Amino acid sequence: MDIITISREFGSGGREVGMKLAEHLDFDYYDKEIIAEIAKNKELEEDFVERALEDQGWKNIPLTYHGSFGYLMQPINVDVLLEQKRVVEGIAKAGRDCIIVGRNADTILEAYQPFNLFLCADMESKMNRCRRRAPEGEQLSDKELIRKINKVDKGRARTREIISGSAWGDRGAYHLTLNTASWEIEEITVALADFVKAWFERPNRC
Amino acid sequence: MDIITISREFGSGGREVGMKLAEHLDFDYYDKEIIAEIAKNKELEEDFVERALEDQGWKNIPLTYHGSFGYLMQPINVDVLLEQKRVVEGIAKAGRDCIIVGRNADTILEAYQPFNLFLCADMESKMNRCRRRAPEGEQLSDKELIRKINKVDKGRARTREIISGSAWGDRGAYHLTLNTASWEIEEITVALADFVKAWFERPNRC
Repeated sequence: MDIITISREFGSGGREVGMKLAEHLDFDYYDKEIIAEIAKNKELEEDFVERALEDQGWKNIPLTYHGSFGYLMQPINVDVLLEQKRVVEGIAKAGRDCIIVGRNADTILEAYQPFNLFLCADMESKMNRCRRRAPEGEQLSDKELIRKINKVDKGRARTREIISGSAWGDRGAYHLTLNTASWEIEEITVALADFVKAWFERPNRC
Repeated sequence: MDIITISREFGSGGREVGMKLAEHLDFDYYDKEIIAEIAKNKELEEDFVERALEDQGWKNIPLTYHGSFGYLMQPINVDVLLEQKRVVEGIAKAGRDCIIVGRNADTILEAYQPFNLFLCADMESKMNRCRRRAPEGEQLSDKELIRKINKVDKGRARTREIISGSAWGDRGAYHLTLNTASWEIEEITVALADFVKAWFERPNRC
């Protein structure tokens, strides 16, 4: 079984790369489905789950508890986080080739040795992509959009910091960090599919 | 003409990837040759040129001069730096497909739109590689080797900071950041060659 995890800067095209890559490789694809599953299992609203998993769940107060550093967490958010872990592990246990976007799947599924991909892009490209995909009626100024992009990424970084040791976006934590700015997603995914296949088929894979 | 630049953490396999990739793609390969050319043109020792280009040339005193921030530079080092720029530009002007390892070629040759690759690896892999390639008789303790690796990278980061705006190793500054730790260089270069070819052949390349 081969697993690909995709972490990404907001607006760098993570969902699109994930979906097209899944198509090319004939892998299952998971993204929002995981949120839906957690919400169903915990009888919560999907919106609440999404917010609980991206920053909003953690208060901004660093704590020292019995000598170790931590964050103040609402019990409900701890619960959502544990359910996320169970759902993501459940996907891996099903044993099918799959791509998981976000959800810190790279750290949760470390034992399965997934291929961990990180996507980034310059701010202008990310703003353009966000504008093309904005919900109808959303009219953010440049300044507001930049603030939104930075806020989402900050939340992702914070959640990762809590779940795992390594920093979000740190090059050493991923097999490949790809800048999506200079070419089309369709072209990227064709090239990427071959690259990832070579990695999974390497002779010394254990 | 296609140009690939390779920046890298010390010990991550930059030279080896560069040479094998050049073989696979039938590109010219430049690394130490650039140092030799600068030394010849400026009538200096190669060792001196190498040190002048990697940290040793810059004093550790940040300066403010007429309101702008800078470093105290020896005139001879400025000279070496300018000669490096001329030599690297000369390679590009020759118009042949090539790979250049180090020398901040990605920033010097920005106008040529090279494919900019950054290589990294975890400390253990880098130490193993350094030990395998150490000059005969070099017997560094783990602590000394880690110090050496960090020192070289710090020098590279400083030189880049002086030459260009973007930070060394910053994911946004490269098209691809590749962790060389989990597979063999030979396998990496085969996969990488196809990936880079796809990038150069993308339909919207201008």
